[in-house]
Amino acid sequence: MNVQAASDSLVEQCRTLARRAKLASRSLASASGAAKDRWLRGAAEAIRAGADAILEANARDVEAAPGFGLNAAAVDRLRLDVKRIGQIAASLEEVAALPDPVGEVIEAYRRPNGLEVSRIRVPLGVIFMMYESRPNVTADAASLCVKSGNAAILRGGKEARHTNLALHAILADQLDAAGLPRDAVQYVGMADREAVGLLLGMPECIDLAIPRGGESLIRRVVAEAKMPVLKHYQGNCHVYVDASADVTMASAIVVNAKAQRPGVCNAAETLLVHRAIAPRFLPEVARELTDVGVELRGDAASRAIVPAMKAATAADWDTEYLDLILAVAVVDDLDAAIEHIARHGSGHTEAIVTSDLAAARRFVAEVDSSAVLVNASTRFHDGGQLGLGAEIGISTDKFHARGPCGLRELTTSKWIVFGDGHIRG
Amino acid sequence: MNVQAASDSLVEQCRTLARRAKLASRSLASASGAAKDRWLRGAAEAIRAGADAILEANARDVEAAPGFGLNAAAVDRLRLDVKRIGQIAASLEEVAALPDPVGEVIEAYRRPNGLEVSRIRVPLGVIFMMYESRPNVTADAASLCVKSGNAAILRGGKEARHTNLALHAILADQLDAAGLPRDAVQYVGMADREAVGLLLGMPECIDLAIPRGGESLIRRVVAEAKMPVLKHYQGNCHVYVDASADVTMASAIVVNAKAQRPGVCNAAETLLVHRAIAPRFLPEVARELTDVGVELRGDAASRAIVPAMKAATAADWDTEYLDLILAVAVVDDLDAAIEHIARHGSGHTEAIVTSDLAAARRFVAEVDSSAVLVNASTRFHDGGQLGLGAEIGISTDKFHARGPCGLRELTTSKWIVFGDGHIRG
Repeated sequence: MNVQAASDSLVEQCRTLARRAKLASRSLASASGAAKDRWLRGAAEAIRAGADAILEANARDVEAAPGFGLNAAAVDRLRLDVKRIGQIAASLEEVAALPDPVGEVIEAYRRPNGLEVSRIRVPLGVIFMMYESRPNVTADAASLCVKSGNAAILRGGKEARHTNLALHAILADQLDAAGLPRDAVQYVGMADREAVGLLLGMPECIDLAIPRGGESLIRRVVAEAKMPVLKHYQGNCHVYVDASADVTMASAIVVNAKAQRPGVCNAAETLLVHRAIAPRFLPEVARELTDVGVELRGDAASRAIVPAMKAATAADWDTEYLDLILAVAVVDDLDAAIEHIARHGSGHTEAIVTSDLAAARRFVAEVDSSAVLVNASTRFHDGGQLGLGAEIGISTDKFHARGPCGLRELTTSKWIVFGDGHIRG
Repeated sequence: MNVQAASDSLVEQCRTLARRAKLASRSLASASGAAKDRWLRGAAEAIRAGADAILEANARDVEAAPGFGLNAAAVDRLRLDVKRIGQIAASLEEVAALPDPVGEVIEAYRRPNGLEVSRIRVPLGVIFMMYESRPNVTADAASLCVKSGNAAILRGGKEARHTNLALHAILADQLDAAGLPRDAVQYVGMADREAVGLLLGMPECIDLAIPRGGESLIRRVVAEAKMPVLKHYQGNCHVYVDASADVTMASAIVVNAKAQRPGVCNAAETLLVHRAIAPRFLPEVARELTDVGVELRGDAASRAIVPAMKAATAADWDTEYLDLILAVAVVDDLDAAIEHIARHGSGHTEAIVTSDLAAARRFVAEVDSSAVLVNASTRFHDGGQLGLGAEIGISTDKFHARGPCGLRELTTSKWIVFGDGHIRG
């Protein structure tokens, strides 16, 4: 993003917005948990009470949607009704019920010289969240950022602009009501696409960028951001069915991992099957998958067993279908499965189905993904399912947060040292 | 860095080196603590036994040093003798004595549905370390990376090239001897400066870049790196002397923070003094600082009390002197001190000297630095002093590691989930 290319007034608007967020973050960092929860509960009430205004704004977005080229599924994701508004409000109350991560003593000890050292959890500062059509993200992201003591800068898709602005107005009013700084949640309302690039170039004010959406959005943000980015590009997730697997369990896990919700990042995209179990396992799992509408694309060895499969091409091993399609390969052994995952995986989620302890231990140790599961569906790699309460996304990065990112992952730590006049000798 | 600008053969060399590191990191990740410690102890022995060869290589570097424009202090940092070689070896043994961070169970619990969830500590992968003249960093960085299960790619300054290569040869030979992959520690021996830029553009093989040296090196690395960078730009550290401070304690802390070792990042650069204590405190601390050779640069209020001070300019508040110079300002109250630090600090280390509990608590809560000290010298912000055993650097970033970075900060986590055929409903 070339700052010179944007108009002076847009640069100034973005700078003001970012500086206000930074200032708000300073007072938010020491806000009490009670005040933050008061805001969350107040906002939930106000969203329910303001349903008519939100629905009116949403109707404008839905009406304009065809003009943005949205298909029927995308319009459905955009559309709110009273039930969905109730869900948005309920999510805020769920976040209110979670423990406040700020101030947690991560560790504390006394050094031999009497210095008292502790490491405590503190907010990151300002989080810039970019996301696509679903308007509920406006409330979800704001709630997680503020609960973890961070100011939020939100930028939703232009196709949901009126809905997002209506939700944001309520969230901001309720910050006032709760005695928290109104600038703790700001919405980037400027229509200009350049605003995002400008904000991504302000690391002095923004501590973290979180893009939520398609891979192209994420790649653009990573390319432009001068601050850290919390992200995953893809979830090219694998299920490996070991020689010793229980065939019934393995089928149930593969069907669940692929078909329970195929459009999400923790759905399985490739099935790897140990050569020894393939003749027994593949016909059964192929039948079950086909019954629920999954298209199979197999390598030569798989197709020798299940000839009805389409032939996989080289590209299939690297594709995140996000659809009812599954690539299938027969592997010689555990080593070959681990090697396939190392070569083609996206480091998101991998599962092994096995009854062999040694195989389970090696898979867990050697597969370098953010979550590795044994005898469980990849679909469990999720903040709610793993007990984090809520998640702002899943990180496949190794630096800072890896895996599901809840409130704790939106914080950092600070070292605190108490002495009695200690000086170094 | 434009890859097209570098020669094809250099690109290929860098790619090969980075890929070898990645491969080595995979087997190093599951290497036993015993094997890693065997390597560290073997390398210590071999460095002592190989002192003659190291000194010979070092003599070549020292001879060539004036040609690189090194001044006497820099040549001294470059020069090794038998004692310094002994210290390098001893550091390796100290790292061997530290606990292995890999495999630590960070948390583990059972979900209501019976899923067993754990988060364990795993290596980052491949670490690219760039550093300037001191050759001991070659051994220190290699030891911390390998002990934490990471492969290391090392690039020291050209002025220490022969010494670094001699040390590296010993470290690599000892990897063989300990049964660890030789490529776990590689030295970027290519003279081409472009090699660094090429490696910084290989995030698929390198997980973390650590520049250690002057701010210009660090800014170059941050600008070019496509992977995360562990760093601090500056240590513009403050000591704030509160109204309630014990004057004798405060003087001792300020003198220690400024003068005990002025050239390091945790030395104090600015002294802030509460208006109420300034008339009593400033003359005493000015005398003590002047006695040890510190030049003072004060604001108008300070110079009204100690007229011998030079006048500070606006630039002084933002300068990391790394020298026997201290900026001095009188502030109206604690709020003004916190505001000054927010505006001018580098987020590295700040200390308060006070006997007032409320002031200590507010300073600790509101100063947003990686380490905040109460009644102790800023010089304690150091991995060794805080009990981390050894440190590879200090991070002022908020994302991932903040403060002193030891073995633990060179790791990430992995989520492990055990089920009994769990699928999502």
